[in-house]
Amino acid sequence: MKVAIIMGSDSDYPVVKKTVQILEQFEIDTEIRILSTHRTPLKVIEFGQCAEKNGFDLIIAASGKAAHLPGALASITLLPVIGLPIKSPILDGIDSILSMVQTPKGIPVATVGIDSGENAGLLAVQILSLKYNILKEKLEKYREEMEKDVLQKDREFRNL
Amino acid sequence: MKVAIIMGSDSDYPVVKKTVQILEQFEIDTEIRILSTHRTPLKVIEFGQCAEKNGFDLIIAASGKAAHLPGALASITLLPVIGLPIKSPILDGIDSILSMVQTPKGIPVATVGIDSGENAGLLAVQILSLKYNILKEKLEKYREEMEKDVLQKDREFRNL
Amino acid sequence: MKVAIIMGSDSDYPVVKKTVQILEQFEIDTEIRILSTHRTPLKVIEFGQCAEKNGFDLIIAASGKAAHLPGALASITLLPVIGLPIKSPILDGIDSILSMVQTPKGIPVATVGIDSGENAGLLAVQILSLKYNILKEKLEKYREEMEKDVLQKDREFRNL
Amino acid sequence: MKVAIIMGSDSDYPVVKKTVQILEQFEIDTEIRILSTHRTPLKVIEFGQCAEKNGFDLIIAASGKAAHLPGALASITLLPVIGLPIKSPILDGIDSILSMVQTPKGIPVATVGIDSGENAGLLAVQILSLKYNILKEKLEKYREEMEKDVLQKDREFRNL
Amino acid sequence: MKVAIIMGSDSDYPVVKKTVQILEQFEIDTEIRILSTHRTPLKVIEFGQCAEKNGFDLIIAASGKAAHLPGALASITLLPVIGLPIKSPILDGIDSILSMVQTPKGIPVATVGIDSGENAGLLAVQILSLKYNILKEKLEKYREEMEKDVLQKDREFRNL
Amino acid sequence: MKVAIIMGSDSDYPVVKKTVQILEQFEIDTEIRILSTHRTPLKVIEFGQCAEKNGFDLIIAASGKAAHLPGALASITLLPVIGLPIKSPILDGIDSILSMVQTPKGIPVATVGIDSGENAGLLAVQILSLKYNILKEKLEKYREEMEKDVLQKDREFRNL
Amino acid sequence: MKVAIIMGSDSDYPVVKKTVQILEQFEIDTEIRILSTHRTPLKVIEFGQCAEKNGFDLIIAASGKAAHLPGALASITLLPVIGLPIKSPILDGIDSILSMVQTPKGIPVATVGIDSGENAGLLAVQILSLKYNILKEKLEKYREEMEKDVLQKDREFRNL
Amino acid sequence: MKVAIIMGSDSDYPVVKKTVQILEQFEIDTEIRILSTHRTPLKVIEFGQCAEKNGFDLIIAASGKAAHLPGALASITLLPVIGLPIKSPILDGIDSILSMVQTPKGIPVATVGIDSGENAGLLAVQILSLKYNILKEKLEKYREEMEKDVLQKDREFRNL
Repeated sequence: MKVAIIMGSDSDYPVVKKTVQILEQFEIDTEIRILSTHRTPLKVIEFGQCAEKNGFDLIIAASGKAAHLPGALASITLLPVIGLPIKSPILDGIDSILSMVQTPKGIPVATVGIDSGENAGLLAVQILSLKYNILKEKLEKYREEMEKDVLQKDREFRNL
Repeated sequence: MKVAIIMGSDSDYPVVKKTVQILEQFEIDTEIRILSTHRTPLKVIEFGQCAEKNGFDLIIAASGKAAHLPGALASITLLPVIGLPIKSPILDGIDSILSMVQTPKGIPVATVGIDSGENAGLLAVQILSLKYNILKEKLEKYREEMEKDVLQKDREFRNL
Repeated sequence: MKVAIIMGSDSDYPVVKKTVQILEQFEIDTEIRILSTHRTPLKVIEFGQCAEKNGFDLIIAASGKAAHLPGALASITLLPVIGLPIKSPILDGIDSILSMVQTPKGIPVATVGIDSGENAGLLAVQILSLKYNILKEKLEKYREEMEKDVLQKDREFRNL
Repeated sequence: MKVAIIMGSDSDYPVVKKTVQILEQFEIDTEIRILSTHRTPLKVIEFGQCAEKNGFDLIIAASGKAAHLPGALASITLLPVIGLPIKSPILDGIDSILSMVQTPKGIPVATVGIDSGENAGLLAVQILSLKYNILKEKLEKYREEMEKDVLQKDREFRNL
Repeated sequence: MKVAIIMGSDSDYPVVKKTVQILEQFEIDTEIRILSTHRTPLKVIEFGQCAEKNGFDLIIAASGKAAHLPGALASITLLPVIGLPIKSPILDGIDSILSMVQTPKGIPVATVGIDSGENAGLLAVQILSLKYNILKEKLEKYREEMEKDVLQKDREFRNL
Repeated sequence: MKVAIIMGSDSDYPVVKKTVQILEQFEIDTEIRILSTHRTPLKVIEFGQCAEKNGFDLIIAASGKAAHLPGALASITLLPVIGLPIKSPILDGIDSILSMVQTPKGIPVATVGIDSGENAGLLAVQILSLKYNILKEKLEKYREEMEKDVLQKDREFRNL
Repeated sequence: MKVAIIMGSDSDYPVVKKTVQILEQFEIDTEIRILSTHRTPLKVIEFGQCAEKNGFDLIIAASGKAAHLPGALASITLLPVIGLPIKSPILDGIDSILSMVQTPKGIPVATVGIDSGENAGLLAVQILSLKYNILKEKLEKYREEMEKDVLQKDREFRNL
Repeated sequence: MKVAIIMGSDSDYPVVKKTVQILEQFEIDTEIRILSTHRTPLKVIEFGQCAEKNGFDLIIAASGKAAHLPGALASITLLPVIGLPIKSPILDGIDSILSMVQTPKGIPVATVGIDSGENAGLLAVQILSLKYNILKEKLEKYREEMEKDVLQKDREFRNL
């Protein structure tokens, strides 16, 4: 189980870090890369072309503003690509979301919410769990913990 | 290989049909359902709870306007859920996209473009191809056909 | 007279607190709960199904981002549901408003303004006053106070 | 049981008609009026001031564009006011929604979706059902019919 | 020469102050009032109905959010009404602009920019200058000063 | 009494015609011109510089898309300039509204609604009525007619 | 003088045709190509890498929706790239504009208006005129014709 | 090689400074000016009319809010005009972008991103490099440096 996490810029790391933490929690190997569709276009192509051969199961690509990275990677690999839009200075990042979901017919990007580092990671886990059964159990536990947290807070407010 | 395709309303079918055609082209079994989070909430829960047991590998959920369906299903199953936003009468469907991508931390929805029935199907194929190797080859052929189409049109314009 | 106030997350409390204060001022019993459509979906169903039996007259549901909570509750109870959209990180919360008002035909949510905790409370009071006449008089006083405040400030500015 | 349905213009009638039909279906008396905050401001005030005395239980106000009508009525009566935004030529009617939900602290408007004539009517029914128990039963039947419709369509698609 | 400056709330004063300063600079009498369409609707009507009799030449109305004030005043007086939209927490105040410009056919509001207190004042001056010739000369001087300021800054940058 | 009506393009005429009709109804002389800030910039300057000398009382400028025309005229004359935004292909014309209201401090444009030809005309009438008393009476009649229309329609609906 | 005109899809041709006509009018050689960043990514790279060697002076790239094409070409060539956004089904094409202007620091795209085929062509002419003096004279004539058109229409309206 | 950099206001300087630094780095002469379409309209005309005679190769115009400056200059010169939109208080500056790209047919503005001072400068360099070959080499080095920066950061993250 190995997931590539590509950022368009090192300024995306505070969000990407949350993705890394999720994947580590599920004991999935990760490789973090900085690759820019605009400043290092050939490196993006190169990475995408070899991603499968290099043992990656899927790719998570974080990007802001024009946010071409996930689409560029998706165009050059058959692996599923998860798009993680980073909050941009315009329209609160709706431009980044649209750059990801609105790729043309044929090249989908599985887009999650603005700055939703955790959800990018969890979507990767859910996708990998189709192949790696061991993740199912861990996911169930993760959800139970999550539910317990809400119930605990619910109790606190009821006793207020 | 079995994929559930859930619509919030039968008016979503023209878009969903394109998803069905993609999945048929890749010889993946599909089951189409109409389930409404608002008008049949318990049926949604019931379906989600049994989806894995019933042999589904993943769920594609199409929905417009408030578009809660993919998130509601994702909250009740561990299977990956692909959200297919249907163009709504407001903001060209951005409200539907946001209802899908902006689910809270813990429950991701893999969102594709507005009315992008084909991309919802192809994303499903790419995800399933992690587990079912046979899909890889077909995907490659699909992309080659797609590329040929563009190159053919390119030639026509160059000869104009 | 008993009103349920449901939050999707404890981070909604600063807004919800203003609702609670209004209801207390009108001597209406309240029960505050944290229930998440995405993280505790079955608890939401359970709460909605029993709300009437448990003596509630109406439900106020506060939620941000994808903001499915009021619609989810409205789908499972016949009690009126007031939706209180919480300012979200995108479009200043218009996504949350739209997730509430744009529920499908059949399941209305009575939506008030972004972060308008007071108005959620006052709308509840006005609705309850149809049944409980005692609230009418208090409402009239509330409005008179409100008007006096404006007139007082008006006088201050005229004397400037 | 009597509900006032106020339109800002006769061009709002195609939407308002759906509200009327819902209320008739539930055997609630209605009175339809055309009153314009901008062109007949004193008539709006007059109507609002006498609404309770004239036996109305609540007011539904439909309006487009600047859409001041529901707020103007709400400012002058203690009855609950349901705002029904009519699709306007700008932003698909988001301006009308915002003119209704964003009234200041103290004067709430219970806003439903753009052109959601049925939901305006159903919200009125749900609110009135707090006082008039007979409506509860009819509401339950209405929902059952609605659910049956969805289930019927679901069956048709499964047999496709 | 007398101008009424109406605010919907005392929180609008920091912007309105700039309008007052412009009018004082042009030696035009002003009266500042706080009147709320929602919290003191009858006072708004009363003020509008008597504005002309009370010697006002025109009305400037500042308001945020649902921003009904300028339209409400315009509906009840024949005096020109200048709408000064105040930055609101949603869409940066576009909702306030739209509430002012999008009044129905028959009742125009002369709308200026968000928080443009100076421009509300200067528009009043330009309108009054049609009747009071003395203002023409002062306006010309104001513009010359404005131009000088720009030219002065231009020189500074050229010498940089 | 003479009003200049400037269009940025002859395609604006269907809206501008409504302005002309209002002004004719009030027996105000008009001169219609086509002047483009981008295609005939010097003609715009020339017109603006001579507008007062040429006997105009005010200027109405209709324009779409980038919509610089009203601001360009306002920068070069002391006469009040009414901006009439024409529905553009983007954002339903919000870009045109913003190009008019958001002119910088010092150069206001009195902006009315999208395609609101009548309101541009009526605002001109209201402004001119400060100087030309004869217009007051006509305005009053215009409003009475308008009110009668609404009341007539109101009666029709009540008898439905 | 040779300009490459790249479209992301043959459906962009109705807009691109206007660009071609402008360039033909100025006797500039053009080559029209269909290249898709998502469906033929390597062809895009290949074209961009050889554009200068192949004698092109600049590139015009038309694209809709996610609209990565101009940025992708700009990343791989030093030639100026003009971005021509094609009206897309969301936000009237604002997503396409933002995908072009919001490329990261280092890789600019000279963006023109939505569907502004003529302006893409004219900007190319203006840029080329820096190097090829012959274009200056033709540009001047083009503008004179344009001005004459406006003046002709102006006369027609004055004689109305 | 000489480039004019025009600002609408001195408050635009923090962004414009980045443009200046790029042009200095490429040893291109610059002249910085403050000219306001609204406050000094004749100076804008004057500057535009003489720009070519005064030896400028192209013009960069920075402007916020209504942002007419680049279009006003473009209307009066044949030199290419680069529009640099400055973040405005509404819609994050989308109004400024639209005021630049949406100029009418015939008068293009080469628009770059919000506050993208560097990209305005680099676009100027790329355009000038068509005529001044010496810039080509420097551009290549600039891009290599940029690529090295990304690769360096990539290495750091891989070693994390």
